[in-house]
Amino acid sequence: MSKKIPVGLSNKHVHLSQKDVDILFGEGHQLTPIKDLGQPGQYACDEKVDLVGPKRTISGVRVLGPVRKVSQVELSFSDGITLGLGDIPVRDSGMLEGTPGIKLVGPKGEVEMPNGVIAASRHIHMHTSDAAEYGVKDKDLVKVPVEGQRGLVFDNVLVRVHDTYALEFHVDIEEGNAAGLKNGQLVDLIK
Amino acid sequence: MSKKIPVGLSNKHVHLSQKDVDILFGEGHQLTPIKDLGQPGQYACDEKVDLVGPKRTISGVRVLGPVRKVSQVELSFSDGITLGLGDIPVRDSGMLEGTPGIKLVGPKGEVEMPNGVIAASRHIHMHTSDAAEYGVKDKDLVKVPVEGQRGLVFDNVLVRVHDTYALEFHVDIEEGNAAGLKNGQLVDLIK
Repeated sequence: MSKKIPVGLSNKHVHLSQKDVDILFGEGHQLTPIKDLGQPGQYACDEKVDLVGPKRTISGVRVLGPVRKVSQVELSFSDGITLGLGDIPVRDSGMLEGTPGIKLVGPKGEVEMPNGVIAASRHIHMHTSDAAEYGVKDKDLVKVPVEGQRGLVFDNVLVRVHDTYALEFHVDIEEGNAAGLKNGQLVDLIK
Repeated sequence: MSKKIPVGLSNKHVHLSQKDVDILFGEGHQLTPIKDLGQPGQYACDEKVDLVGPKRTISGVRVLGPVRKVSQVELSFSDGITLGLGDIPVRDSGMLEGTPGIKLVGPKGEVEMPNGVIAASRHIHMHTSDAAEYGVKDKDLVKVPVEGQRGLVFDNVLVRVHDTYALEFHVDIEEGNAAGLKNGQLVDLIK
């Protein structure tokens, strides 16, 4: 396999619905893009919110855009413990049933999310043409080996295929640090 | 291989020399054990220190006993970034040449460590009899597979054999969370 996959490390972040943007930042507020992300059309926003958990608050958590149908908070296991949420579930993005909630605080208001807090499943985004080249399909599980002093082989890596996706291996900060990975580092997949 | 290895998750902690204990907690102060650790003779202490980095301070970091010849601070990669130390080196315990320093602050004084900050290499402690059973020797590198949703295979796991060691697989919090490991969970090794 010749084509390599760039690593994208995900720090804690929040996706918001327009309804929740309205409450947190004011009626009709539009998110302010400040930096494009690896996936086409996705961007980091100037906006930040505070996450108020049962035990502690994590301040200044970055909002990612564009808005989604449902708000979602993506954290590391350590973030979940810090907030007092205990062990947060590992889920694919959007699979929020039975997940814990959290209070979001913005400059103009507060939102009590009834659920939506997850640790995102490690996954590889790929364009349909990449999937054909690798011989994999949407929702396949593959392995990703990482070389080096903290070398390891990630198992259960979800493949997500779409015509709008760019090739990128997403892991959270703890997964990245456990493997000594850097943003943009190139990895392979094993079927 | 029938004998399983219990996991020990290491949060950030500090080992101190008696000289540094004297400075931080007062001349002649003896560390106060509050909880035995997995390795015989090792214990968590009532004492805590603040780590003052170039960027930020991490307060209330646990001291582990007994005292050692040289002070050593064991952190996660994220802790290193938080403090402003950048990428801290992965080292075996005690291999401190060329590692970054840090300022320690205790109730009675401060110590400027010239070096000694590391991310500890993932390792398995084992008694000499365990090593014989597994067919490994001190300083071997082995693999440790972990099952489950966050399943992975740790590579480059250092084997440390001694007559005073108890069987235990030590990883830091980020490595543990990346694999969904819990304290006391049982794992295997692969040669």
